[in-house]
Amino acid sequence: MIGTVYLVGAGPGAPDLLTVRAVRVLGEADVVFYDSLIHPETLALAPRAEKIPVGKRSGRHSTAQRFINKRLADAARRYRVVVRLKGGDPTLFGRAHEEIAFLRKNLIQVQIVPGITAALAASAELGISLTQRLVARSVVFATPRTANGAEPSGWERAVAAADTAVLYMAAGEAQYVRQALLGAGVPPSTPIAVAENISLENAKLAPGVLAALPQLAAGLSGGPALILLGEVCAEVLAGAEPRALQRRAR
Amino acid sequence: MIGTVYLVGAGPGAPDLLTVRAVRVLGEADVVFYDSLIHPETLALAPRAEKIPVGKRSGRHSTAQRFINKRLADAARRYRVVVRLKGGDPTLFGRAHEEIAFLRKNLIQVQIVPGITAALAASAELGISLTQRLVARSVVFATPRTANGAEPSGWERAVAAADTAVLYMAAGEAQYVRQALLGAGVPPSTPIAVAENISLENAKLAPGVLAALPQLAAGLSGGPALILLGEVCAEVLAGAEPRALQRRAR
Repeated sequence: MIGTVYLVGAGPGAPDLLTVRAVRVLGEADVVFYDSLIHPETLALAPRAEKIPVGKRSGRHSTAQRFINKRLADAARRYRVVVRLKGGDPTLFGRAHEEIAFLRKNLIQVQIVPGITAALAASAELGISLTQRLVARSVVFATPRTANGAEPSGWERAVAAADTAVLYMAAGEAQYVRQALLGAGVPPSTPIAVAENISLENAKLAPGVLAALPQLAAGLSGGPALILLGEVCAEVLAGAEPRALQRRAR
Repeated sequence: MIGTVYLVGAGPGAPDLLTVRAVRVLGEADVVFYDSLIHPETLALAPRAEKIPVGKRSGRHSTAQRFINKRLADAARRYRVVVRLKGGDPTLFGRAHEEIAFLRKNLIQVQIVPGITAALAASAELGISLTQRLVARSVVFATPRTANGAEPSGWERAVAAADTAVLYMAAGEAQYVRQALLGAGVPPSTPIAVAENISLENAKLAPGVLAALPQLAAGLSGGPALILLGEVCAEVLAGAEPRALQRRAR
């Protein structure tokens, strides 16, 4: 038997931000390979499944990724519904491409179930729109993190050229990020917001300006964090925003 | 009584791509103001609610938007749970900012429930990752559409600077989009995919290169469409992709 591997987006963290389709696929899952930082209540949506953590830490990605690819293929030869559960959306900063390519090479069917990416959960919690007429007609999602430093990347130029930007996996390198963006011509007075543990009880939202990024990032607790930049963040900075408000929506 | 206005993302079209939270809020809704192109089954998730279409056509946005703002505020003075149901995600190309600003000015509480934006549903259906190690570390969502032509916009420079791009509300101006992107230095051989009616039964996915964009767009049927650009689309172009595959996920 050859099963199907579903790459399923778990969203930003809160279990009720999964899609209905994701919940259904989890309910049918025989086995779930899950990232670190998946909420326990989200895993509980797969009552029948064997649950296998495959969380990675930066620095030893490549080996781990090859191992995950192989385990997914092996599982698809034993089970009907194999779920690879990824934080956020599988097609954004999730290394889905490597899993898809490996599985297809092994003639295993792959389906992708999209998820709410952290940037969109952050804008919802901040109460701001990432695009805005007359202010922002483009938004870029980017990461300064490269594959072992070997990767040519113009991420800072992409950020400078877009009206709004959301940086993933960047808050831990705040000093470098600030310098790179200033070097690319982004003004130090650009409004920003640093958002950590978005959609969870311990969410933290800190507004400021690009010049103060390292200080803002120093206030974080080590959870997954985003940096939002652009004029659309100005209202957060102005304090117009009851920033804990969104949490009552749950 | 002052109710809460929930800006709820309806996702790309398929009802099972709403979040669990969106389904819950719809179930509690007293009144739902909905965009055109919301799926009937999605509206049926709000059995108690009065349902009011406020779909807009381009060209007479401003008047309609002011009218919608006022109706939302009036509804919040009569009902507890007022839903403004928007295609995709409310904070991306959804004019959420204007509704949020008006409601806050009127001291009405606003909550945002994120949705799957069409770009992420398109990548899922195409079976590609919008980011990819060593190939794409940034993705921009942009629109060439401006407010009555009065808006300064460097959308084409933002697209040129990012590794991957997804253009919203652009397929109807394919000739102009091609020229603007070529003018910004995007190579005519850049792989693209045009995606229409994403996540629905009548979804259409057409791969090609930027030079052929007008021909690809001419094959569309007038539904909501996206243009994806960048090396990550190369696999679709190469035909490596069983492109109708994703539809079986439903």
